[in-house]
Amino acid sequence: DELIDPKAEALLYAADRAQHIAELVRPALQRGEVVVQDRYIDSSLAYQGAGRVLEAGDVRHLSEWATDELWPDLTVLLDLSPEEAVKRRAGRGEEDDRLEREAIEFHRAVREGFLRLATEHPERYLVLDATTNPDTLAEDIRARVSGLIS
Amino acid sequence: DELIDPKAEALLYAADRAQHIAELVRPALQRGEVVVQDRYIDSSLAYQGAGRVLEAGDVRHLSEWATDELWPDLTVLLDLSPEEAVKRRAGRGEEDDRLEREAIEFHRAVREGFLRLATEHPERYLVLDATTNPDTLAEDIRARVSGLIS
Repeated sequence: DELIDPKAEALLYAADRAQHIAELVRPALQRGEVVVQDRYIDSSLAYQGAGRVLEAGDVRHLSEWATDELWPDLTVLLDLSPEEAVKRRAGRGEEDDRLEREAIEFHRAVREGFLRLATEHPERYLVLDATTNPDTLAEDIRARVSGLIS
Repeated sequence: DELIDPKAEALLYAADRAQHIAELVRPALQRGEVVVQDRYIDSSLAYQGAGRVLEAGDVRHLSEWATDELWPDLTVLLDLSPEEAVKRRAGRGEEDDRLEREAIEFHRAVREGFLRLATEHPERYLVLDATTNPDTLAEDIRARVSGLIS
């Protein structure tokens, strides 16, 4: 059977986060390094929220337990409509993974989930329009980051 | 790095339990079948308790969430001293896995963990001396099981 149970899936993501944080991120932070990573707890919350199978509070609790409540100082959300994202991926000739093959309504719900999280936690979110040219995006991110690490 | 973070390990066991229960055990119970399995939540509690890294309450909560609080009607504990267990495995020429290679003190703590769980939940435990001959063990188990399924 190819079906993954929603709780099993959430637990596997949490296991991956726990190992990654314990093995790489905490030691780097303890050495005083700046850690940049692609996807974290908010991805679990936004994707699970879109799937609407598990309780958001349960998924948050699980993620916080797995990571010993390690939250990022800054989350950069490069916001793009699902339609535009599909075009970009097609343009690159990339093969879609299991999550990317979901229907457009799913991706719309994920996007709304991320934007809701950004609204709830404005102090640690930088939301940028991902259709802006890359140089401008880099500059905006640099400006916000340099304020944090100076 | 070969080291598994204790929380990552607990989450992987919980993921395995969630998938196993959702895919195989619940459907079988719904068909009215009797399910017999080797190891379950109490193994996590006894092993984690012996490792003494994670909170017992956290591991229990995780296991209950993963399985939607599915507890067995009966747990048969075939109790054996770690020394006797080592002799038996050696006699069979089996290769020890990661948990079996732990020191004897660890196995002693795991055994104590199981016996404590049996004391706390006598209504669902049958503790048998595993040095008894197999026919007698089978008879004792049959007697207790037939009382449950009749």
